[in-house]
Amino acid sequence: MLSVLHRGLLPLFCALTLSAPALAAEPCLPCHLEKTPAAVKRWQESAHARAGVGCEGCHGKDHDKILKGEAKVDMTVCAPCHKKAFQEHQASRHGMGLHSGWGCTRNLPGRKADECRFCHREGDTAPRSDVQCARFLKQSSEMGQIGCNSCHAVENACDSCHSSHSTDLAIVRNPNVCAKCHMGPDHPQWEMWQTSQHGTINATLGRNTGPDCQTCHMPKGTHNVSIGITMNSGGIPYDEKKARPARADMVRICSACHASEFVRRELQRDDAVRAQSLKLLKEAEQILWDLNDHGLLDPMPEQRPPHPLSGNKLVTDAQMLYEDTSHIERLFFKMKKYDYARTVKGAYHQNPAYTHWYGNAELKMDLIDIKAEASRLRERGKKGLERKSSIEEELTALQKKFERGEISDKEYAREKEKALKAME
Amino acid sequence: MLSVLHRGLLPLFCALTLSAPALAAEPCLPCHLEKTPAAVKRWQESAHARAGVGCEGCHGKDHDKILKGEAKVDMTVCAPCHKKAFQEHQASRHGMGLHSGWGCTRNLPGRKADECRFCHREGDTAPRSDVQCARFLKQSSEMGQIGCNSCHAVENACDSCHSSHSTDLAIVRNPNVCAKCHMGPDHPQWEMWQTSQHGTINATLGRNTGPDCQTCHMPKGTHNVSIGITMNSGGIPYDEKKARPARADMVRICSACHASEFVRRELQRDDAVRAQSLKLLKEAEQILWDLNDHGLLDPMPEQRPPHPLSGNKLVTDAQMLYEDTSHIERLFFKMKKYDYARTVKGAYHQNPAYTHWYGNAELKMDLIDIKAEASRLRERGKKGLERKSSIEEELTALQKKFERGEISDKEYAREKEKALKAME
Amino acid sequence: MLSVLHRGLLPLFCALTLSAPALAAEPCLPCHLEKTPAAVKRWQESAHARAGVGCEGCHGKDHDKILKGEAKVDMTVCAPCHKKAFQEHQASRHGMGLHSGWGCTRNLPGRKADECRFCHREGDTAPRSDVQCARFLKQSSEMGQIGCNSCHAVENACDSCHSSHSTDLAIVRNPNVCAKCHMGPDHPQWEMWQTSQHGTINATLGRNTGPDCQTCHMPKGTHNVSIGITMNSGGIPYDEKKARPARADMVRICSACHASEFVRRELQRDDAVRAQSLKLLKEAEQILWDLNDHGLLDPMPEQRPPHPLSGNKLVTDAQMLYEDTSHIERLFFKMKKYDYARTVKGAYHQNPAYTHWYGNAELKMDLIDIKAEASRLRERGKKGLERKSSIEEELTALQKKFERGEISDKEYAREKEKALKAME
Repeated sequence: MLSVLHRGLLPLFCALTLSAPALAAEPCLPCHLEKTPAAVKRWQESAHARAGVGCEGCHGKDHDKILKGEAKVDMTVCAPCHKKAFQEHQASRHGMGLHSGWGCTRNLPGRKADECRFCHREGDTAPRSDVQCARFLKQSSEMGQIGCNSCHAVENACDSCHSSHSTDLAIVRNPNVCAKCHMGPDHPQWEMWQTSQHGTINATLGRNTGPDCQTCHMPKGTHNVSIGITMNSGGIPYDEKKARPARADMVRICSACHASEFVRRELQRDDAVRAQSLKLLKEAEQILWDLNDHGLLDPMPEQRPPHPLSGNKLVTDAQMLYEDTSHIERLFFKMKKYDYARTVKGAYHQNPAYTHWYGNAELKMDLIDIKAEASRLRERGKKGLERKSSIEEELTALQKKFERGEISDKEYAREKEKALKAME
Repeated sequence: MLSVLHRGLLPLFCALTLSAPALAAEPCLPCHLEKTPAAVKRWQESAHARAGVGCEGCHGKDHDKILKGEAKVDMTVCAPCHKKAFQEHQASRHGMGLHSGWGCTRNLPGRKADECRFCHREGDTAPRSDVQCARFLKQSSEMGQIGCNSCHAVENACDSCHSSHSTDLAIVRNPNVCAKCHMGPDHPQWEMWQTSQHGTINATLGRNTGPDCQTCHMPKGTHNVSIGITMNSGGIPYDEKKARPARADMVRICSACHASEFVRRELQRDDAVRAQSLKLLKEAEQILWDLNDHGLLDPMPEQRPPHPLSGNKLVTDAQMLYEDTSHIERLFFKMKKYDYARTVKGAYHQNPAYTHWYGNAELKMDLIDIKAEASRLRERGKKGLERKSSIEEELTALQKKFERGEISDKEYAREKEKALKAME
Repeated sequence: MLSVLHRGLLPLFCALTLSAPALAAEPCLPCHLEKTPAAVKRWQESAHARAGVGCEGCHGKDHDKILKGEAKVDMTVCAPCHKKAFQEHQASRHGMGLHSGWGCTRNLPGRKADECRFCHREGDTAPRSDVQCARFLKQSSEMGQIGCNSCHAVENACDSCHSSHSTDLAIVRNPNVCAKCHMGPDHPQWEMWQTSQHGTINATLGRNTGPDCQTCHMPKGTHNVSIGITMNSGGIPYDEKKARPARADMVRICSACHASEFVRRELQRDDAVRAQSLKLLKEAEQILWDLNDHGLLDPMPEQRPPHPLSGNKLVTDAQMLYEDTSHIERLFFKMKKYDYARTVKGAYHQNPAYTHWYGNAELKMDLIDIKAEASRLRERGKKGLERKSSIEEELTALQKKFERGEISDKEYAREKEKALKAME
């Protein structure tokens, strides 16, 4: 096959004709033409080679470390030459990568203070809850590598998108590159875009007529992919102060083709879909907490392995786990993590099936299932298999509400008195 | 980027060189080159521009209405010039669009008698049940727009497929355009076709060897996409009288490449798959009605918001909702709306995985789950949480069967007597 | 359309210019240019036509048999000329096709001893359990044809991949051809590969840079697609003796581009993911057997149609059915057949979303649901609806364990005594 030629003659030819770059890589090439032929080939065709940036320039000189996979070429290597891209990236959500690019620092030797600060306020051992790392903490090392860090390494590795060694911009100009991570049940932007109007026009008439990911999310090639986004990574809307300028940015981007009035109307319609979907989530969440307060989950948080951050408490925010919980929590996880995301992102990416069937219909059906399971758990509670007097249940529920600050101490005292009176 | 050139020089150039069309659009162009650059560009490259059909020709003159989004360019605008396409379209299922393209007329001012007749027989306030609009009636306005009408607008808007302003036939000759709507859990024809023999050959050798959507469903470019279809939009087979000529049409289409005997055998095999799948649906449906008749659903129809068309009754036909019902009804909704469709359409589109794994296996597993939930509900009933005497349950069940015409008054009287006798 | 030309002029032209091939096919052509135009066209463009292999060479002379679909062109027809491909194929998993390519021989007249031996040891009427045909035995003939044999015919039909009549290698060199079968919920290699690094690079820079299915699984065009695979078709790892040389083969293949140390590390990481996933499966499976042993499944195996191979026994191995079982068995079927496969194959195909969200997260959530349902079934058992004394339950459970060889007769005697003592 052609690869035989590539492996033998072509690299040899390239090695002889390249002067300065060849010299720069010379120590590595004889071995590596045989050991890592693709990497060498890609480098030889690259802008780095033409600019005289050889192997050691990025990989360093410690070959033992490299062999052990301990000399990752991270952004600190690329940044000095690619300042603009680096700064834009750092300002974006890619640059924070949900900070699981390197995993929680508890798992790493030589932790840097910077890493701690991502999850913790100064001097506080409790993590801020909007940082999602509880699920990562539960992973085996292998699952963490391939299942989490493969994508979240975007925080700190340019080759997440740019591939390694090749500098061919065709790779990053094709929306396929975004599909490596932005697909799947929790954020299927690739799938949504492909069958949206934008995607189908793009497939037929090209990117100047049908915009792709890069058109809207990397205008003029900026690496700040978060321009124009008006919600956090869990799909929770920003407050007005933060959302307003972001929305103005997005309107500007869409107005490259569309009337800005049309753009505003469409995006406001999508905002409404988001708000309606959030309401459904809240309704479902309330049911879970009510069951929790009445001691009716099966199993209860205290009857299962503790949550890595919250211990033996119910967790329904961004730190929610998908293992060892009750069936009704599992239903809510799907509702929140997959179906809410698909409804909302489906709307903003103008895909009817994702907004409706994969989205809204699933949210509504999740709610049916959650209510049905709640009904079953309540009846189960009444049947006394885990029987407490109903007064005890009410007092326990009130205590839990007070402990998490949902009712004041005045309300707590008042409600307690009511419950005890009812007992007489 | 190239779009800068497009936005600046090219339109200017076009504006200067086009004579009659330029004059026709002249009032609009100066503003709109800046306000809606893509629309202007597409129009300038279009056959409409070359034929002297300018902005006002389609949009009318009332700029205020246009700004408010109240001057939709619908088919009544296109039809006078594109008579053949319009008539073919009207004869097809696209032309009826499940009549949610404009929503149920209860939601619209200025309703036309034609619209009423789509859902109602003359003089009848009860809708015919094979018109699907109950789910649309439950949607928020925003979800109705993006989740339903984006696709169902095909009934009344040529730009559903043709895109707006561009008249480039490459758009509508690429099966991608069908994918905008014909994808998703309830009708994944795009997905099925892509990995079928037809689709894979199409990807490798092109459409003259591997047929695409348009080849089979728009033979010779007809807009009557329903030629050769032998079932209604819910997948229920036509009666023999209607199916026969339709099947003959499809055999004729497939015989462009295949032996007609082979075609007939294959399609009859698919008919058998459809009949077998329908039997599974009926089996599941019967279980639901039996539970309903015995007052065992949780919640019962009378314990939930009324169905917009049927009130407080169980609904398992095409008007079925996916919200506020019981868990077992939700299981049946998935079975009927998604899994039956995938099995049947998977067969007719020659996709094994959709026919089998996404189809038949899911139908069978839905039936397992429905039977399991029925077993649970029956046991729950016996445990007396919602306890009636079993004689009462039987009498209620009989009454319901009689009221909906499932048994005659003679049978009703006879069965009632039997039940009462058993009581003694 | 162009097909009109194809149907009329081009075949005529070809018929006149081809000499020997034309003569070879001459008896068939006049009719078949009209009856099966695509087949004729493809043949005329083919290497077979150029080599003088005409219709009768493959189809034989019995036209009646052909018309009845009883003269399938199977591999025994192709093999004499294509020996190498045939032998390689026979050595691979494609060549065993899970032996449902022709269905279980019980369904076929004229069964060959070879066919029996695939499922049975000599003289043994009980099938070996790692042959998957129980689900096939439950299918209707039509579902078996389109849902099973369409893909499994790869065992015995070259046209599964090569298409019929056309010999254009472009078909089989495009990974699309693999997608016809290697997609779907139980083995979505096509979907995984498409958004993996390999797949996205392939889409942008072509197959010499981004490997496709054929690159890794058919190195140098071999038809032995099983080179380098270290597990059986159910995803169960081979023992060390068999896995070692297979792994060495795969390392060799990947080393065409990558450092072999990197390859080994990556594949070992994937082996770990596989082992961890298998543990989850075993945990779930144990729950099912425990419920079975305590008579708590709803329905129990003896209360449902018998398994075609195992009768009224619980089946959780490769012969597992997806119909007529209990809900908890249905959950396990999904876990084993779909989610385990996706986790493991997702890892080996370097797709994070499939390894994690479609894979590991689903496995964990399946386990939640299985434990929840087990909890419900156990409580149901205690409530006495199907009440046995708990001593009876324990004795029954012990007897079942002994009968299937899970405990020795000594252990059985000892445990029985303990249970009876507890009764006093």
